[in-house]
Amino acid sequence: MPENDKQGLSVVTCTAPVNIAVIKYWGKRDEDLILPINSSLSVTLHQDQLKTTTTVACSRNFQQDRIWLNGKEEDINNPRLQSCLQEIRRFSRKRRNTGDSTSDASSVSHKVHICSVNNFPTAAGLASSASGYACLVYTLSQLFGVESEQLSAVARQGSGSACRSLYGGFVQWKLGTQLDGKDSLAEQVESESYWPELRVLILVVSAEQKSVGSTSGMHTSVETSQLLKYRADVVVPSRMEEMIRVIRERDFPAFGELTMKDSNQFHAICLDTYPPIFYLNNMSHRIISLVHRYNQYYGETRVAYTFDAGPNAVIYTLQDHLPEFVQVVRHFFPPEVNGEEFVKGLTVCSADLSEELKRDINMEPTPKGIRYIISTKAGPGPCVVKDPNHHLLGADGLPKKSAISH
Amino acid sequence: MPENDKQGLSVVTCTAPVNIAVIKYWGKRDEDLILPINSSLSVTLHQDQLKTTTTVACSRNFQQDRIWLNGKEEDINNPRLQSCLQEIRRFSRKRRNTGDSTSDASSVSHKVHICSVNNFPTAAGLASSASGYACLVYTLSQLFGVESEQLSAVARQGSGSACRSLYGGFVQWKLGTQLDGKDSLAEQVESESYWPELRVLILVVSAEQKSVGSTSGMHTSVETSQLLKYRADVVVPSRMEEMIRVIRERDFPAFGELTMKDSNQFHAICLDTYPPIFYLNNMSHRIISLVHRYNQYYGETRVAYTFDAGPNAVIYTLQDHLPEFVQVVRHFFPPEVNGEEFVKGLTVCSADLSEELKRDINMEPTPKGIRYIISTKAGPGPCVVKDPNHHLLGADGLPKKSAISH
Repeated sequence: MPENDKQGLSVVTCTAPVNIAVIKYWGKRDEDLILPINSSLSVTLHQDQLKTTTTVACSRNFQQDRIWLNGKEEDINNPRLQSCLQEIRRFSRKRRNTGDSTSDASSVSHKVHICSVNNFPTAAGLASSASGYACLVYTLSQLFGVESEQLSAVARQGSGSACRSLYGGFVQWKLGTQLDGKDSLAEQVESESYWPELRVLILVVSAEQKSVGSTSGMHTSVETSQLLKYRADVVVPSRMEEMIRVIRERDFPAFGELTMKDSNQFHAICLDTYPPIFYLNNMSHRIISLVHRYNQYYGETRVAYTFDAGPNAVIYTLQDHLPEFVQVVRHFFPPEVNGEEFVKGLTVCSADLSEELKRDINMEPTPKGIRYIISTKAGPGPCVVKDPNHHLLGADGLPKKSAISH
Repeated sequence: MPENDKQGLSVVTCTAPVNIAVIKYWGKRDEDLILPINSSLSVTLHQDQLKTTTTVACSRNFQQDRIWLNGKEEDINNPRLQSCLQEIRRFSRKRRNTGDSTSDASSVSHKVHICSVNNFPTAAGLASSASGYACLVYTLSQLFGVESEQLSAVARQGSGSACRSLYGGFVQWKLGTQLDGKDSLAEQVESESYWPELRVLILVVSAEQKSVGSTSGMHTSVETSQLLKYRADVVVPSRMEEMIRVIRERDFPAFGELTMKDSNQFHAICLDTYPPIFYLNNMSHRIISLVHRYNQYYGETRVAYTFDAGPNAVIYTLQDHLPEFVQVVRHFFPPEVNGEEFVKGLTVCSADLSEELKRDINMEPTPKGIRYIISTKAGPGPCVVKDPNHHLLGADGLPKKSAISH
């Protein structure tokens, strides 16, 4: 329920999480509606470490819709932004017409001011579009009193993977069959509390150059990769079933192996694209090699990597193996001395490495190859922020100073 | 016809070329017979730049078969070496029994001494097994007076791609259908004189680490890559047809594009292998990027890359575009000053680069990223060396000093 002050200003602030796919989304069958060529599945990360915060205000006094992202005003006419705004307003009017709305029914006709910030640096290489559009759509839905299973379809039209950030825990995005995309929705497979031992590390490497954006990359893949259709039609459907099963069974070795295989196949498709797309660099290759050598030492999959459209690794492991693996990373990628703290986020206990382990891994250390690690775990979906002190927009409907220098 | 001196020593020396596939061979359906899961097609490189030279001597006085590779005696019991020796002797006996043999019929029962050297350094990253086994089999066939279309099937059992080095010019290796592999043979598509404008550059980059060997790599791919079977069964057959057509039409843009796509798909399969195999490094990525930007500048495919099981690029282009492209490489990968000569092999004329071209390519130069270039072109198949001074084995049947310090 939005606050509504004497000025006729309604304000709502929400937060939404980042998600990391373990079965990758790559390729659209409809570029306008953002309908994928295959289903995908992700883990929602905890907002204590990574989140987008968005405040939306509406008032009869606002002249036009406006948006500020990370302190800078952006063009509200961005087509994907417009899709989300229009869709939410359409839902809201529908509810008002059916007498369903729980909120101020008139607000839907007012202009909105949107202010959004991420608590993670762009350098972390995490696509902020997923948490960003999920947060936008969720906050608008709160403001306009929209409750719908279709919310994820609205977020999807902002950024495909945003639909998965509307739920916590383990989330699948079913590709759907309808032409209008109404059944291309996210749904929760299991909540964040289902597998509490699962832990996540983001290894931020030093990127040398900007990668191809995922929108244009997946467009080129659909146009040119002969292997992509086979992946989407034949490989992914059975992988989705298997992934859901191994998550329900909390079978880490199977979960980890399938996660790595699907990451590798996604990057294989990028290479089969013409011209080819490279997201992995030499440092990514070294991390992949380290993970396989570590697992081989123990004769089981204790740690798994996955890479999105960039060189940073996301590592899944279990709580019990976390301290040692972080120490392994520290040993083979010695961090800058006196630099910023190496491990951010959830505390990781220290651990000793056996000489045998170091010898068996048998890799040349790469100093400063990894800039820092973010330690986190699975977390809940979007949340409403109750404390009005946390609104990013002031009583004048403009960004507070704190929303600019985040 | 081998020379046969008073000691009963028969000696033959031959040379054989390297070949570079434009439709890649990756995956065996029979590991013992070395039968591939898909056909492949290559260009035989000129022996003036790259060749293996092999001398085989046989004598009733030799106690055992022996082999020296690049000056060092190696184990003659290598199973693949044994396959080739046995097969050639079998062919020879068959011919003797049918009265077909043109040579000393008794020699087949004698032991052989084999001495082989490459005129290219291992650092060039060119698989020497193709030219090596082709040369061995061709030389043995000359010694034993074997003439057969099946020679390529013998070389194939030494190293798959060796079968293609038995012919000059453009050579396909048809996968065949028979279980015994008798129809898995190489055949010439067009000779080396068919497309004289075609030129080849080998860009030798600085490799940091040893790659996975191709034998074990392709074994793991067959075992684990879900995309490999689709490539072999669906993609390659139509690519083989197209490649033969565009070579016959001397259509460089189509030849170049298909060559690049097939190289990329081969490396995509390597990435889809579990654990993944990386042959391309950051320098390979930069070369790929440079080629695409260069072609984009001209709005046509003037230059094409292909990569085998390592980071070195092989470039195909036409004579007219060669000087400028070499200058482009020199500009974006400035060689070490006062180092060894940068361009070896066939002379490349100098060329000036326009500021516009350099600006449009818009890449940061990478000093010393490429160690040197070998400039060459398509060439003929194996040759017999007539001059006895070039024998690598002396009258005593042992390697001459010159064969050791090559």
